Amino acid sequence: MKFLATLILVLTFKIVIAQSVDETTIRQIFTTSLTEGQSYSNLEYLTTKIGQRLSGSPGAQTAVDWTKKVMEDYGFDSVWLQPVMVPYWVRGQKEIGRIIRSKMEKPVEVNVCSLGGSIGTGPKGILASVIEVKSFTELTQLGSKVVQGKIVFFNRPMDSKQIDPFHAYSGAVDQRGRGAAEAAKYGAIAVIVRSMGVNSEDYPHTGGMHYELNEVKIPALAISTKHADALSNALKEDKTIQFYLESHSEILEDAPSFNVVGQINGGEYKDEIIVVGGHLDSWDLAQGAHDDGAGCVQSIEVLRIFNAMGYKPKRTIRTVMFMNEENGLRGGVKYAELATANKEKHIAAIESDRGGFAPRGFTMTMTDIVRTKVQSWKPLLEPYGLTDFGQEGGGADIGPLGRQGVPVMEFLPDPQRYFTYHHTKEDTFDKVDKRELELGAASMAAMVYLIDKYGMK
Amino acid sequence: MKFLATLILVLTFKIVIAQSVDETTIRQIFTTSLTEGQSYSNLEYLTTKIGQRLSGSPGAQTAVDWTKKVMEDYGFDSVWLQPVMVPYWVRGQKEIGRIIRSKMEKPVEVNVCSLGGSIGTGPKGILASVIEVKSFTELTQLGSKVVQGKIVFFNRPMDSKQIDPFHAYSGAVDQRGRGAAEAAKYGAIAVIVRSMGVNSEDYPHTGGMHYELNEVKIPALAISTKHADALSNALKEDKTIQFYLESHSEILEDAPSFNVVGQINGGEYKDEIIVVGGHLDSWDLAQGAHDDGAGCVQSIEVLRIFNAMGYKPKRTIRTVMFMNEENGLRGGVKYAELATANKEKHIAAIESDRGGFAPRGFTMTMTDIVRTKVQSWKPLLEPYGLTDFGQEGGGADIGPLGRQGVPVMEFLPDPQRYFTYHHTKEDTFDKVDKRELELGAASMAAMVYLIDKYGMK
Repeated sequence: MKFLATLILVLTFKIVIAQSVDETTIRQIFTTSLTEGQSYSNLEYLTTKIGQRLSGSPGAQTAVDWTKKVMEDYGFDSVWLQPVMVPYWVRGQKEIGRIIRSKMEKPVEVNVCSLGGSIGTGPKGILASVIEVKSFTELTQLGSKVVQGKIVFFNRPMDSKQIDPFHAYSGAVDQRGRGAAEAAKYGAIAVIVRSMGVNSEDYPHTGGMHYELNEVKIPALAISTKHADALSNALKEDKTIQFYLESHSEILEDAPSFNVVGQINGGEYKDEIIVVGGHLDSWDLAQGAHDDGAGCVQSIEVLRIFNAMGYKPKRTIRTVMFMNEENGLRGGVKYAELATANKEKHIAAIESDRGGFAPRGFTMTMTDIVRTKVQSWKPLLEPYGLTDFGQEGGGADIGPLGRQGVPVMEFLPDPQRYFTYHHTKEDTFDKVDKRELELGAASMAAMVYLIDKYGMK
Repeated sequence: MKFLATLILVLTFKIVIAQSVDETTIRQIFTTSLTEGQSYSNLEYLTTKIGQRLSGSPGAQTAVDWTKKVMEDYGFDSVWLQPVMVPYWVRGQKEIGRIIRSKMEKPVEVNVCSLGGSIGTGPKGILASVIEVKSFTELTQLGSKVVQGKIVFFNRPMDSKQIDPFHAYSGAVDQRGRGAAEAAKYGAIAVIVRSMGVNSEDYPHTGGMHYELNEVKIPALAISTKHADALSNALKEDKTIQFYLESHSEILEDAPSFNVVGQINGGEYKDEIIVVGGHLDSWDLAQGAHDDGAGCVQSIEVLRIFNAMGYKPKRTIRTVMFMNEENGLRGGVKYAELATANKEKHIAAIESDRGGFAPRGFTMTMTDIVRTKVQSWKPLLEPYGLTDFGQEGGGADIGPLGRQGVPVMEFLPDPQRYFTYHHTKEDTFDKVDKRELELGAASMAAMVYLIDKYGMK
């Protein structure tokens, strides 16, 4: 009994010491980020000096060159580029949308923008009557007889009573992604999609849409939520009103681009890799501050914090700026391909792609055993506002890694404001709070620290 | 045994049913707030149409009249005013602050503002050399020999490594509140206080300061954090630099004002009152959107939501717009006095005065037994992001009630952005997110619902 008691005492003592070291280290991570962090100044450069960085654009290339240089200047052990061909879509000159009630009335200008990947109407535009639907089911019920030759207006709003706006987004985004292709099946000549915004707003939200091979391509544009309501009201008064659309977007040849990768080599298990990343590309309407400049600078900051603290990880910590999340996911797919080809062993991947807001937790997709292990770290993270560890999920860019069996996680900031800015002209640097951004970077660093220390088995 | 088993089954069933009713009702509260809420449009009116409402000012009176009318229009059972005399301090024309290095160099203009309650320098201003200190201890050590005839510059920053900026605020705000009085003891002729902001900012933060009876009054001004750093750097280079201050603030005679009170009468225990409130007055530099327009419109919204849902409370639910939180707390004191005089029985009071940000929880000051009861409701509130029920505290306005033994709570929104706007020109309507505000109102309504249903014993 005495032996057992001593053993328990020694083990308890070891656990207490370990917890205390972890508490101290995590506290130091947050202090480093909050008092000498560089994520905010890096974000300022990326968003205000470089600005929009749609895949294939000169902005994207500048961002590749700059983030590579930032990582090199920080003295990461290796920094390199992974070439990847990306879709190259250009918006062209500003779109026009007009509600035309009759020849006698002045047309009402409404705010529209092409969805990414859409063909344009060209300079002649499209003038047609409009049929409003709320779902693909409704579209199918109407069929070709009603839809043929018309503009289909998808107007199912994001459900504002959802507490998590990401759930509201999931419940509406099919209209944006596949509305054009579905409507074209019934002879529609264009689609207007209610913007993926939860509030009443003047500005439209762009975002990805796609045509499958051999599908008929028709133009797809988003309309601001405020003007979606105006159009819907106009249709209630008079179903014969017409809509004029003009857009100049074009799908060009695929263009060469890169993922940007930097790493700190592990001391004990160099072959085991922990990835932390965001996507470097953004939509073209603004600076891509929350989506996903924030995730990029936070991911770089994780490694910088370790260096600044003189912390030597056991495992290799790698930051990845994925290219082309918004309209192709080519960077994420390429990264996973290369991981397989190079026989790399990834033990975990964390993405930040939900904005630079105050920390709430992490989503995770992994085996139950590993999930239980990660959730056991909760007491170490709760003092920093990280309380939500219950949701499934990883980021889009690390999805391909996840499908190879790598445990994936996404940093979960407060979700409420994300869809106010998402894919709009409003996604600018001034919408990011310095402390919120820094706390997010530190949250990710703390999680990487724990994964590095305790592994994922 | 069979009887016992049946009893357990029946009791379990009752508990499950009760939980299910609570879940449904709370879900309905959030739906009402998010889909047909009026807190945001009310805040827009209060902040952009009425604007600043410093105690005693015409803006404050307009806000009294307007909130009374809003409550009447909502059909609350009773709406009335509680007269209260309030301090009336006016800022006067814009302040001037200049760093003067030598007669040869151009003075450097810096952004300063009078602290609320301070006397002004008058049109002649004050020109003197500056002594920088970080604490009252340091001031005392320097003593009259050094301080006499100088401007004392309090420059201890808010500690940015604190995870909760409210803790950082607590650790610095003594300089603002009592710096002038302490410095005057050693013959200082004015004080400049580093703004209570955690970031590097161009604009100063005002806020309350006070002189005790018979204390020597000297002018007290806040300087922006950026310019505090500039002044500190200038002093490092040359201790003989001078500073020119000019301020025109005045302390006028106390003025008549009001708390605005509205209530829905309880059905079962009409005499038991649950208070939910915010403070109607604001500083004069901006619109008082987060501080505390948000808390006011949220508190009114709690009662409006109950009415909209057709929910009849057991107890009396009362909303109070407290007057003069910022520079006197006269409204809060008067409310508690009247509660005693009228032998009213308050079973709980909740304040919202930490901004209209996304919900995190509630602080509470009450007996352990009642605290345990409130904390047992956590599972019902967690789905709405309310996870923090561990902190002590109630709002300033309900402090006097709390000292009478009433259980007090404060709604706890995410704290990170509060001190970016607090007491500055930046505290405007556009800084408030609609959903965050609505979620806060619903959180308070949910808490009031549970208190009303289950009592506080």
